[in-house]
Amino acid sequence: MVNQVQQVDGSWLSCRGDSSGASNSSAESSKESSRCSTPLLDADRSDRLREKMRKRIDSGDQWFSLEFFPPRTASGAVNLISRFDRMGSGGPLFIDVTWHPAGDPGSDKETSSMMIASTAVNYCGLESILHLTCCNQTKEKITGYLAKAKHLGLKNIMALRGDPVGDDWEDEEGGFNFAVDLVKHIRSEFDEYFDICVAGYPTGHPEAESYEQDLQHLKEKVDAGADFVITQLFFRPDTFLKFLDDCRAVGITCPILPGIFPIQGYQSLRQLVKLSKLEVPEEITKVIEPIKDNDAAIRNYGIHQAVDMCRVLLDSGKVPGLHFYTLNREVAPMEVLRQLGLWVEDPRRPLPWAVSANPKRKVEDVRPIFWASRPKSYIYRTQDWDEFPNGRWGNSSSPAFGELNDYYLFYLKSKSSKEALLQMWGEELKNEQSVFEVFTCYITAQPNRNGQKVLCLPWNDEPLAPETNFLKDELEKVNRRGVLTINSQPNINGKPSADPVVGWGPPGGYVFQKAYLEFFTSSENVTALLKVLKKYEPRVNYHIVDVHGHNMTNAHEMQPNAVTWGIFPGREIVQPTVVDPVSFMYWKDEAFALWIEQWAKLYEDESPSRMIVKYIHDNYFLVNLVDNDFPLDSCLWRVIDDMFELLDATPEPPSDEAGL
Amino acid sequence: MVNQVQQVDGSWLSCRGDSSGASNSSAESSKESSRCSTPLLDADRSDRLREKMRKRIDSGDQWFSLEFFPPRTASGAVNLISRFDRMGSGGPLFIDVTWHPAGDPGSDKETSSMMIASTAVNYCGLESILHLTCCNQTKEKITGYLAKAKHLGLKNIMALRGDPVGDDWEDEEGGFNFAVDLVKHIRSEFDEYFDICVAGYPTGHPEAESYEQDLQHLKEKVDAGADFVITQLFFRPDTFLKFLDDCRAVGITCPILPGIFPIQGYQSLRQLVKLSKLEVPEEITKVIEPIKDNDAAIRNYGIHQAVDMCRVLLDSGKVPGLHFYTLNREVAPMEVLRQLGLWVEDPRRPLPWAVSANPKRKVEDVRPIFWASRPKSYIYRTQDWDEFPNGRWGNSSSPAFGELNDYYLFYLKSKSSKEALLQMWGEELKNEQSVFEVFTCYITAQPNRNGQKVLCLPWNDEPLAPETNFLKDELEKVNRRGVLTINSQPNINGKPSADPVVGWGPPGGYVFQKAYLEFFTSSENVTALLKVLKKYEPRVNYHIVDVHGHNMTNAHEMQPNAVTWGIFPGREIVQPTVVDPVSFMYWKDEAFALWIEQWAKLYEDESPSRMIVKYIHDNYFLVNLVDNDFPLDSCLWRVIDDMFELLDATPEPPSDEAGL
Repeated sequence: MVNQVQQVDGSWLSCRGDSSGASNSSAESSKESSRCSTPLLDADRSDRLREKMRKRIDSGDQWFSLEFFPPRTASGAVNLISRFDRMGSGGPLFIDVTWHPAGDPGSDKETSSMMIASTAVNYCGLESILHLTCCNQTKEKITGYLAKAKHLGLKNIMALRGDPVGDDWEDEEGGFNFAVDLVKHIRSEFDEYFDICVAGYPTGHPEAESYEQDLQHLKEKVDAGADFVITQLFFRPDTFLKFLDDCRAVGITCPILPGIFPIQGYQSLRQLVKLSKLEVPEEITKVIEPIKDNDAAIRNYGIHQAVDMCRVLLDSGKVPGLHFYTLNREVAPMEVLRQLGLWVEDPRRPLPWAVSANPKRKVEDVRPIFWASRPKSYIYRTQDWDEFPNGRWGNSSSPAFGELNDYYLFYLKSKSSKEALLQMWGEELKNEQSVFEVFTCYITAQPNRNGQKVLCLPWNDEPLAPETNFLKDELEKVNRRGVLTINSQPNINGKPSADPVVGWGPPGGYVFQKAYLEFFTSSENVTALLKVLKKYEPRVNYHIVDVHGHNMTNAHEMQPNAVTWGIFPGREIVQPTVVDPVSFMYWKDEAFALWIEQWAKLYEDESPSRMIVKYIHDNYFLVNLVDNDFPLDSCLWRVIDDMFELLDATPEPPSDEAGL
Repeated sequence: MVNQVQQVDGSWLSCRGDSSGASNSSAESSKESSRCSTPLLDADRSDRLREKMRKRIDSGDQWFSLEFFPPRTASGAVNLISRFDRMGSGGPLFIDVTWHPAGDPGSDKETSSMMIASTAVNYCGLESILHLTCCNQTKEKITGYLAKAKHLGLKNIMALRGDPVGDDWEDEEGGFNFAVDLVKHIRSEFDEYFDICVAGYPTGHPEAESYEQDLQHLKEKVDAGADFVITQLFFRPDTFLKFLDDCRAVGITCPILPGIFPIQGYQSLRQLVKLSKLEVPEEITKVIEPIKDNDAAIRNYGIHQAVDMCRVLLDSGKVPGLHFYTLNREVAPMEVLRQLGLWVEDPRRPLPWAVSANPKRKVEDVRPIFWASRPKSYIYRTQDWDEFPNGRWGNSSSPAFGELNDYYLFYLKSKSSKEALLQMWGEELKNEQSVFEVFTCYITAQPNRNGQKVLCLPWNDEPLAPETNFLKDELEKVNRRGVLTINSQPNINGKPSADPVVGWGPPGGYVFQKAYLEFFTSSENVTALLKVLKKYEPRVNYHIVDVHGHNMTNAHEMQPNAVTWGIFPGREIVQPTVVDPVSFMYWKDEAFALWIEQWAKLYEDESPSRMIVKYIHDNYFLVNLVDNDFPLDSCLWRVIDDMFELLDATPEPPSDEAGL
């Protein structure tokens, strides 16, 4: 008789076979499950890094990871964060951020290692490792850094000794002399909270007495509690493979990841070689010395060389993943990864929005649709929440959103300069119509009258999402007439979850959406719109609010409307996006403020351009519309058409702009 | 400027107009909403009776209610409960159960007023009023009854004086002398917990000094805290309408409901008239005296007379609802209500299963599919739960199910006698095939070999549900071959929520289902089935368990699978039915036990028939299958066909029945 429970993943658990006991054991285990009702979807989110590695090793699913260093300047930080977003989309298992003792690495400065790693985790959703060096540091200082990292949601530390201050190393009494001391310290102070990575030296550490002794040092670090190893760079695959065999031979059993350095330029290679005290093999110098002034040629060679080396490593069957020293550049690492087939061109999205990697948010599975184009702002404004609405929005106590007073936090900042914004949005606005044109150019991706493409708006720092492209023609038409759209989604009636444009969630499922449209428009338009909307009851739900909070709605005050949901094999319904009346009132504060903070303030105080934007801010309404009848063609365009028709049929009212 | 929030129901609430304050006020109110995330759906369930009346009076939606008396015998109780189910489907606003001091009305006997009212609330989902008479009762006794009623989930009391023990009334020192004393007592001991109804006498109470004085007594009862009035029966609409005007004139403003007595027979009329000391008007006696021996004629006249009277009452515009003295009969009251258009032929179901009226269960919005045909058993086994899984099954702590040891509780009992069951299920079973035939006859509604229709099975006390009729041909085919189905539903890919067969929930929505099939079958079949199911991964989820708890599944151990859900305007997804792995282990105990308790025990100990049923109980598996691919035609029949094909292709194995 079969006395086992077969699990989804193919493993078998034994199961108590007594009839009466089944009830009790079920009751106990169900208690445990109450913490998370979507284990399949969230498995990857709740696993710690070492578990993710273990699972991918078991399944033979090879991965890559990316190393970055902290930027020197604030604008460098903005650029690095958007690089995280772009390179994160290729599916790295993790990234790591180096620790630069000279750069105040544990501070709150936007260029610090700590802040960059925290931003990667919290705002870019990337599993991240923070480097930490211990030489010349007190235990208290190190403990402080670790406590801060933990508080920020960081879960992984690369434990390093670091470089001595002078040229030669001097042991410190009672301090940290070796990385192994740091590993022990982390384990003794923080138990199993952190996953710990340590460095391996395929040719031995330059200061080690011997290669063999260095292997022993590595073994000590692993025995002290390190979970995996990343190696220093090397130039020949055999270097790594021999090192790997030697590690195994001395009893190091944890994952050991090769550090890959695609040669990207002559100078950077020389510099790195100098720092790491490595020798470049002759077969490489022979090729690059003759082309040392041809950057493109060197980069191409570097890509070629790295791909060749990686192929040998991967084919050995001993390498579960590759770690890339990116030097904060995108092109070469991405090209290598593409050629290796490791870059995920069309990553599966577990949810329709990018999840945060902060462990605190690992159960987060629903967000209001309003911040769809400003996810980092949403994360920022909810960073102090203790729990996240889980599944049913209104069912969880809903803490207040944080105020968004600082629109200039580097992870919320526009990637464009003031000058670029003025070129896109107009050096000088003549009237409301000039604003309509900006919106229209953004939608159509056509150049404005100065020949500039409008690549962003205060509410959208990126060009239109692919799924919004479906709606382009309609969007263009209504923006021209002053229905200034800032968010929309088409209706979807059961597309496969694997759909490349609108799909998300586990395979074998179906995703659905209700059509959504959000825009600013004048009070005259709103008056007509409200009349028109009566015809669409109860099909269309609306919320209409001005900057003062005057609010009109036909929706239940407290009832969220699920506008994106998915049905998957063997699980409950997932409904990750809602139109939530409560959070709409917080969003409207932000949405209206962006007119002033990001647009009006580009112009001189009292200038006509500034007054025009301020007039819109003061007088327009923010409108959202949901078409509940998702199996039918969206009626939202008809609603807007009807509104214009009514306006066109009505003679201009006598000037009474104050009243609706 | 519009400074209001328009609500769904058309009313307008003023809304704070300051921009900064909006955030705070929203946060506060969202807290309140956290108690219930589906207010639109649940509004009617969470309202108390007086609020339901108020809303229906406001909307002009006239209602009816039904009065019953407790049965004398246990089998009478079984019949009355199934009458509640049938008459409850017509949509009464409430029912009430009279209080018979002679019948131990507050006891736990299945015939007591208390138990009957509790069953109506908890197991039949009917809003119910328990009568309570106070004469010759101590305050302690009355408080005890009220506390017990409250504990059982009863929310409404009809406060009556009751009839004196002797012929004449004697005031009691310190006791209850009038119904008003009881009203005051309820309010002082239980505050606003109960809604209180009192009796009105359109021609004055027979013991009152005068009609006017009796009106004053009624006013005192209302002033003491009664919420509404139901009148004694009367024979002319003018009698009631005059009484109503007189009540309003003395300042009684609460709802006053006329008590309607459709004449159903000569004897019952005489008896009631004697008890209530009323006079039958001459125009009625003139008609019925000549036909007093013709029951059908009298009933027809009674229906005609009641309809006429009710029409006058309803047309007066002063009568919000009608209260019917049913005398525990169905035909006449239902006919009157049908002719009046008050009987709801096709009631809207708020959820796909019948909700309980116990206030404790008012947030219950999800149940496992397993008890679909035994909802009263599910309610019984979860009666001690403090909260009910709300929306996401696995998300709420899941208390253990109660043991179901007593299969003979009157509200769980089969409506058929032992003799009837033997005729349906076979006086004598020859082999397993005889059992297959019983299942097949149940599915096809064809007579068995003794010419008897099989109207129920141990797992289904009712004939097949209309939606299961879709599956009839397939069900017949597989039951003939020993796939003994006990529960199934077809897949549904977005039918309107108003669909008469499968619809449920508020209007304007869409309902969905995954195909589901549950059956007992032999271990030989299960061996083949498991092989076949490999081809259907991950489309089909299964749980297969035998009586000893040996359990095979490809589903996540703790993950419920939503198999019925609905999408509605302006709200979150509702998913009221799940296949929940934890509760399946509780259900299997009950499902297997029914073989023995309801079937095997019909036969003599050690008799061949009993041994056959016991063999099935001991050796068969209980299987459930879900086809996750709801937009496609269900593949579950193909799974079973493939299983039979595999069995047919395989030569009989050498006898080794013990192993799978």
